[in-house]
Amino acid sequence: MTTEGADPLRIGQELDRAVVTVDPALPRLVHEGVERTAGRPLGTGEGPRVHVGPAVPGLGDGERLLWVHSTTAGVDALLKAHTPWPREVLLTRTVGRMGERIGQYVLAWALAELQDVPGFLRQQVSRTWNRLETELADGTLAVVFGTGRIGSGIAAALQQCGVRTVGVARSPRQAPGFDGVVPLGAPAGADSPGIPSAELAGVLGEARWVVNALPLTAETAGLFGAELFAAMDGPTFFNVGRGETVRTEALARALEAGRVGRAVLDVLPEEPAPATSPAWDLPRTTLTSHSAGPTTHADVTADFRAAWEALRAGEFPALTVRVTAGY
Amino acid sequence: MTTEGADPLRIGQELDRAVVTVDPALPRLVHEGVERTAGRPLGTGEGPRVHVGPAVPGLGDGERLLWVHSTTAGVDALLKAHTPWPREVLLTRTVGRMGERIGQYVLAWALAELQDVPGFLRQQVSRTWNRLETELADGTLAVVFGTGRIGSGIAAALQQCGVRTVGVARSPRQAPGFDGVVPLGAPAGADSPGIPSAELAGVLGEARWVVNALPLTAETAGLFGAELFAAMDGPTFFNVGRGETVRTEALARALEAGRVGRAVLDVLPEEPAPATSPAWDLPRTTLTSHSAGPTTHADVTADFRAAWEALRAGEFPALTVRVTAGY
Repeated sequence: MTTEGADPLRIGQELDRAVVTVDPALPRLVHEGVERTAGRPLGTGEGPRVHVGPAVPGLGDGERLLWVHSTTAGVDALLKAHTPWPREVLLTRTVGRMGERIGQYVLAWALAELQDVPGFLRQQVSRTWNRLETELADGTLAVVFGTGRIGSGIAAALQQCGVRTVGVARSPRQAPGFDGVVPLGAPAGADSPGIPSAELAGVLGEARWVVNALPLTAETAGLFGAELFAAMDGPTFFNVGRGETVRTEALARALEAGRVGRAVLDVLPEEPAPATSPAWDLPRTTLTSHSAGPTTHADVTADFRAAWEALRAGEFPALTVRVTAGY
Repeated sequence: MTTEGADPLRIGQELDRAVVTVDPALPRLVHEGVERTAGRPLGTGEGPRVHVGPAVPGLGDGERLLWVHSTTAGVDALLKAHTPWPREVLLTRTVGRMGERIGQYVLAWALAELQDVPGFLRQQVSRTWNRLETELADGTLAVVFGTGRIGSGIAAALQQCGVRTVGVARSPRQAPGFDGVVPLGAPAGADSPGIPSAELAGVLGEARWVVNALPLTAETAGLFGAELFAAMDGPTFFNVGRGETVRTEALARALEAGRVGRAVLDVLPEEPAPATSPAWDLPRTTLTSHSAGPTTHADVTADFRAAWEALRAGEFPALTVRVTAGY
């Protein structure tokens, strides 16, 4: 949980004098929730700045930034706009019930496929009564990239229906919800997609579901390319991480060749996708408009409060961003 | 588990000499599986008749029926064709993994609604990227009519996603998968639908999901009428039991009035529904062509084997039909 230069003990001590602000575009409920936690009117005081919002605020003359609490789980855009990140400034993020939410999203779309919900909806339109084949989820294999809170939430949701779950991480260690964790292999480079480890290639070949829940970092950008897709044998591929981690052209070819059976994409490199986007033409694919893991007002204020309380106790908040890792 | 006049000890003793037959229309795998259990060629011997099939077989001169194993879970049609049932003949049925299968069907359609799968499928067709609202299942309330194997399978599947489950039974007793069980109230009569008990009316008013998993009997025929629907406040109504337990006209009016929010109907009074059936015109309704609980060949032979072994031990099989109850 180390964040590079920030010192939670010092930050905790400075909270008493800090000027707390909330992005003006955020709803009133967030302003009120943050104010309750801070115990003082927003924007008042003489100390360093604590800010809650999707981006780093502009600072006045002589103002010093103490801590930024991001209102989203992905901080790639925020970090990209502030490179290099000032190492003494703490960055935390909002995850809320995102693991549970994205887990239920993946489970819903997996079960909808097994129960042929789209097929019955089509039959309803054409007033057709034909028995359609359905399958139980029990015993199918899911490979989930990312074993943090979101990956574990997905694995836990799938396990509830008897799905076997294997996680993928750079440094495998046991994580909640997973029957096992395998190493990724070579991460993506500037011009190269990821190369799966032998263990990963083995489980990808058996998988019924492959779920990408990775954040966007230098090592995950373009990770899903021809090499990873070549190891698959017809699973349904979910992207609930970041659009830029998947090479859309390689996914298109994998769908055409049947290496990927279906795709459910919540995220794309270009969002919102215009009607002219080629992503709409991917075969056997559904786009879900970045809706899988909404954070609510309550999530933002609850995660801010938990971080505030950890700092008051002199500890790093659980949702501290490791800036060099990018999440 | 009492079946009226059949004596499992006597039947178990007669199995050695019984002539075992399988409906000729059933697949070869069922014939082979039953033959393996019986340990002799089908159709051979001099003793009383044991039959596996969807209906009671015609008997030759002097033949005596010992035991019929139904290849389906619902035995209403079989019993109707053989009224009165000869009380000394054992009737068993096939349930297989039907509780698990129907449970996953209900869960899939409930989650598909919460995740707005139909909405995203429509957006895909029109190449529209709009964030749609989704909801977690956690904390919603399901009321499930029927607390036997199938009702319990449904409740268990919903509980996995944090749904609160209340069962409905004529004689409430705790059942697996249920947080509680309430009494039905007055069952249906020849000209009257069911009247909910005060406890049932209370939970129906809170329910997000109402699931009918009841068999068809004299007391359930036409049970779901104006009185039960009037106690509801917009839930999604599933029928995975038998079509004749629901008055389609009353359901149509409840949907129009919003007492029922949506309906997912796996069964109808008339099956298969022709394209001209008014059921296709029910608002906010999807028909799923009696696909929710398929029984496989393996289910039939496994349940027959378990029944055979119980009888050899002088016990009633777990899937013995109580003929006066109708299931």
